[in-house]
Amino acid sequence: MDERQRARRPGGRGARVGAAVHQAVTDLISERGYGNVTVGEVAARAGVADSSIYRRWGSLEALLTDVALTRLNARSPMPDTGSLAGDLRTYAANVAREITGPEGLALLRLAVALSSNGQQGTQALDDLLAERGRQLQSMLDRAQERGEHAPDALGVLDHVMAPMYIRVLFGLGPLTPDYVNSLVDRLL
Amino acid sequence: MDERQRARRPGGRGARVGAAVHQAVTDLISERGYGNVTVGEVAARAGVADSSIYRRWGSLEALLTDVALTRLNARSPMPDTGSLAGDLRTYAANVAREITGPEGLALLRLAVALSSNGQQGTQALDDLLAERGRQLQSMLDRAQERGEHAPDALGVLDHVMAPMYIRVLFGLGPLTPDYVNSLVDRLL
Repeated sequence: MDERQRARRPGGRGARVGAAVHQAVTDLISERGYGNVTVGEVAARAGVADSSIYRRWGSLEALLTDVALTRLNARSPMPDTGSLAGDLRTYAANVAREITGPEGLALLRLAVALSSNGQQGTQALDDLLAERGRQLQSMLDRAQERGEHAPDALGVLDHVMAPMYIRVLFGLGPLTPDYVNSLVDRLL
Repeated sequence: MDERQRARRPGGRGARVGAAVHQAVTDLISERGYGNVTVGEVAARAGVADSSIYRRWGSLEALLTDVALTRLNARSPMPDTGSLAGDLRTYAANVAREITGPEGLALLRLAVALSSNGQQGTQALDDLLAERGRQLQSMLDRAQERGEHAPDALGVLDHVMAPMYIRVLFGLGPLTPDYVNSLVDRLL
């Protein structure tokens, strides 16, 4: 176990710092929105030194992405229902619930903030999308292995995720179960 | 001619003020991004009183929307090529060029800023989308009148516009002509 792993072991000081920093980010963003939060403010709210944040995450953008991914993976894990249609419907329903929930557009706003935020922002956004893309690809690979004909991950993004994101972004909700299922069925 | 019309006649003082205010908004946004511009700063840059802006536009959000619509209508007018496929391909290509151009995500960022900005922001975004929606609907209605089978405007949003917006937002470009045409062909 190297220092980095040790610092993050469950229940250790690293885990407590991580939880406090994540909570501080979540609170500050819900108060002010993305783009109006600094490392100094996160550190003060979490009761840690700025340098601890830079050492562990490297940049504000990477920290924001870590918070977003942790939240996504906790609240919208990739389903494994035994069929592609079941997986995609469950996944799409989770995303619909998440983006129309109390924190609404949080992730889309993060994406916009990152894409506006220079090289580090773009890199952080790439990392977030790559991780979620890998998870989605595993779901599609399982379907192929079962002998189902699966679309590619970009097809899912283009024709299932993108319409939901844009409808919420443009205030053209609600995302009814019928609408969400119709996006999946149309793709399959 | 009432006072409001008189104030906006081409070449009059109203037109000069309008052009100066639009230019000030465009400049400030390109310097700082949406969400970091105030009515006071726009007024100072344009050389007019704050009260002139509130009297004419009512709110910062409505002003931002007016600027965005004016820009959209100037740079991405709805085409009339004589066929639905031609119209949609031209329209999609214009949008692709606009959102990947030098000011890139400007409109998406405006949409995000407005959707985060309370009742006035939401109203302004609704107005912008309603106006562009009417223009798109006219294009689809012309196709129906020619006897072509046209999708509805939300279908165009979901499966042509939304994928392009999200790919640009997520840094998954470029939007090649083949890709843009494939979105249109898939919808038709």
